[in-house]
Amino acid sequence: MKSIIVNKNIVELEYAVRGRIPQRAAVLKKEGKQIIPCNIGNPQALGQKPITFYRDILSLLENPKLILRERKIGELKSISNYALDLADDLLTQMETGLGAYTESKGFSFIRESVAKYIDKRDGIDSSQPNLQSNPDNIFLTDGASEGAKAVLELLITNNKDGIMIPIPQYPLYSATIRRCGGAQVNYYPDEDDDWSLNIENLEDSINAAISDGINVKAIVVINPANPTGAILNDDSIKQVIDFAGKHDLAIIADEVYQENLYGGIFTSFAKAIGDRKIPLFSLHSVSKGFYGECGQRGGYLEVRNPPDVENSELSFIELLFKVSSVNLCSNTIGQALVYLMVNPPDQNSDEFSSFNSEKKQILDELFEKATIIRNSFKEMDGMECFGKIGALYLFPRINHLASGKTDFDYCMSLLEETGLCVVNGSGFGQKSDTHHLRIAFLPSKALLQNVLPKWIDFHNKYVNQ
Amino acid sequence: MKSIIVNKNIVELEYAVRGRIPQRAAVLKKEGKQIIPCNIGNPQALGQKPITFYRDILSLLENPKLILRERKIGELKSISNYALDLADDLLTQMETGLGAYTESKGFSFIRESVAKYIDKRDGIDSSQPNLQSNPDNIFLTDGASEGAKAVLELLITNNKDGIMIPIPQYPLYSATIRRCGGAQVNYYPDEDDDWSLNIENLEDSINAAISDGINVKAIVVINPANPTGAILNDDSIKQVIDFAGKHDLAIIADEVYQENLYGGIFTSFAKAIGDRKIPLFSLHSVSKGFYGECGQRGGYLEVRNPPDVENSELSFIELLFKVSSVNLCSNTIGQALVYLMVNPPDQNSDEFSSFNSEKKQILDELFEKATIIRNSFKEMDGMECFGKIGALYLFPRINHLASGKTDFDYCMSLLEETGLCVVNGSGFGQKSDTHHLRIAFLPSKALLQNVLPKWIDFHNKYVNQ
Repeated sequence: MKSIIVNKNIVELEYAVRGRIPQRAAVLKKEGKQIIPCNIGNPQALGQKPITFYRDILSLLENPKLILRERKIGELKSISNYALDLADDLLTQMETGLGAYTESKGFSFIRESVAKYIDKRDGIDSSQPNLQSNPDNIFLTDGASEGAKAVLELLITNNKDGIMIPIPQYPLYSATIRRCGGAQVNYYPDEDDDWSLNIENLEDSINAAISDGINVKAIVVINPANPTGAILNDDSIKQVIDFAGKHDLAIIADEVYQENLYGGIFTSFAKAIGDRKIPLFSLHSVSKGFYGECGQRGGYLEVRNPPDVENSELSFIELLFKVSSVNLCSNTIGQALVYLMVNPPDQNSDEFSSFNSEKKQILDELFEKATIIRNSFKEMDGMECFGKIGALYLFPRINHLASGKTDFDYCMSLLEETGLCVVNGSGFGQKSDTHHLRIAFLPSKALLQNVLPKWIDFHNKYVNQ
Repeated sequence: MKSIIVNKNIVELEYAVRGRIPQRAAVLKKEGKQIIPCNIGNPQALGQKPITFYRDILSLLENPKLILRERKIGELKSISNYALDLADDLLTQMETGLGAYTESKGFSFIRESVAKYIDKRDGIDSSQPNLQSNPDNIFLTDGASEGAKAVLELLITNNKDGIMIPIPQYPLYSATIRRCGGAQVNYYPDEDDDWSLNIENLEDSINAAISDGINVKAIVVINPANPTGAILNDDSIKQVIDFAGKHDLAIIADEVYQENLYGGIFTSFAKAIGDRKIPLFSLHSVSKGFYGECGQRGGYLEVRNPPDVENSELSFIELLFKVSSVNLCSNTIGQALVYLMVNPPDQNSDEFSSFNSEKKQILDELFEKATIIRNSFKEMDGMECFGKIGALYLFPRINHLASGKTDFDYCMSLLEETGLCVVNGSGFGQKSDTHHLRIAFLPSKALLQNVLPKWIDFHNKYVNQ
């Protein structure tokens, strides 16, 4: 076949989290070098144990005969009665088990459960029906990415449709905007003020876009943030909402790290918006938090105040439904995990205390590891790190880089010398003339104790060469 | 927010398999009517049992502690030693279990396993290295749809890039071509000759497209076919390959029904192409065959002879890799099911005979049910059905419809009167002035014995009204 021209949007999109540095790491690993993969928030790849309760349920859903067997074997039983009853109940509600396509949006009882969880999280009860979450506007998805992609694909009609994204950002957004042929409009959280947002910065950004003829349609906010790990304060959230209201923008709130908080408080955009009629798309996932079930690909998209659509007889929700129909449905194990994520074991159950102690141990350890890494920055010349610790990442600024060197060079050399695989700040976007890296704080403490001294050594030599 | 303009490609795409008729069925079901969902190939929704061996393995992968427990409980054991050993082995090869993101293309040992399966299926051994499947060109995907979408998205650059699709076709293809903004180029298998293909029809179709200024890049073939259920004979396959070679087209071979054969023989495009350098994208899935694990979303895309790319430094495979990277990875349970699909139990194992008897029972029953339905067409005035029976579908032609009535009207009335939910032929495309419907032959024999007489009654009244 003669050579062909392919979709230039795909040619041009970039995705550093799985880009050249991790690809080099894969080669080194094959050659026998020990690699510590901190390029991605993938906890179980670095030894985090799955929550026992979740896996008990999932195994019973895959293999219902084990429920009865477990009930029969008496003292040898290793699954709680609570889990056995729940698995039974879930199978009844699913009707067709895990092996059939579900409704396009996902099992309706799970979507109802998600809506209840959101209301409970945000302190909304039946006395405020207009603020309650609507299960019909919830879509269960293969991880959170799929929901973000569906919304962006629907919003973007041409290269003058703009989406505001924070810089730095998780490259899913820049990549998807590029893939859909839209315009990326950068805004800049204030690093030195713990990555807070303020309306002046947002105004500067949209005004520049408008003067370029861009029709800005939505603003993406990631909270807790990826890659910075920062947690937005309530004032920042309010400023985004006011800004979106003023400029008629939808808000895409990536809230997948809402349980990864170490010192900050999470406020959802759903709660903060209240009864203002601003379109909101919020995303959550089973991949992060203390669950860390990345490979099982579960997530949800919740829509509030869907915008009216001018060029279709179908509503925005019906159009999203059509997209999800072509995909048939998200995977059923991921859907079941979403159910478990929004339904922790009952306080009075025989499952509660072990579940909670596993949860606490994972979150405590994550915080401890983040602190150990952050403290080691103090021994690195010109390494500074801002913001409360959230998500699974630290995003330190490398203030002293020899001229001509980039953070990409730094990270590649760090990988070659220590086996530590992190991602260069430029892979997420950053203010010009700044240099950063993102590290996922997931390696075991033993591994950190081994590698951090090497990193400190490497750093001080590298920046002072 | 003011009303907005959304992506017209999504506004315009259609997907009848989950369109107005099944949506009406959902409403009727809520109202208490018994619905028989034959609109979609979803075997377990209609009572087909999952293969025990698969579910044993999946439950052990989700919950590895059960392996040891099972080995300990002696007579109470309900999982074979073969399955226990295999689960152990798979967990070792996975290293990080089901909960971590895998490589973007999927676990490499599973991709290697798929390559071996393809070679064995096609009778290729190490004496023909140029014909062997390459694991680096295999992508594990969430069902087969995802692979088809990735290829089409990469091939289509604008509305003059054409993709040839059979009429009738599975609407994933028309919907995705529309979504990517490309041009759909129809070709017409010969219904009265058992839906065979011939080069004259293909030439007519491409010539018409070329004279419209369309740059045709690929031809989609579905074998066994969806919606017709027909199995392509070797001559048809050869004609497609010659045609693709002559016109410099890639072939997209949707072969997800390759184990659903009742009287015909399956030849893969990979085998038929041999050493000709024609780009081939073949798709397979765990959703169909005798496995029917639709909800668990496993599949693969195999690429052969990837085309050279003019406008990128990256190769076609590297570009597909980039797309899969943004998705992070397909779900791990789906990946594990692909492994199981391509590795049936060893002939000498304690699992072999029960596995095979389950497999045989499912396939025998499908054939029997297809035959029962097809025979009932003989009692319906002017109902004709062509082709060897394959896939999960029959696609009879309704020759006598009262003037002014469409097959959509027919199917909607059939649903209202009998609860039987099928899809109108126009949902898949069909030759003008013909009328069809697609029925998935999945309901139990008891259900069929109940509903078929009602259908026959309905039909003869409806077409003679």
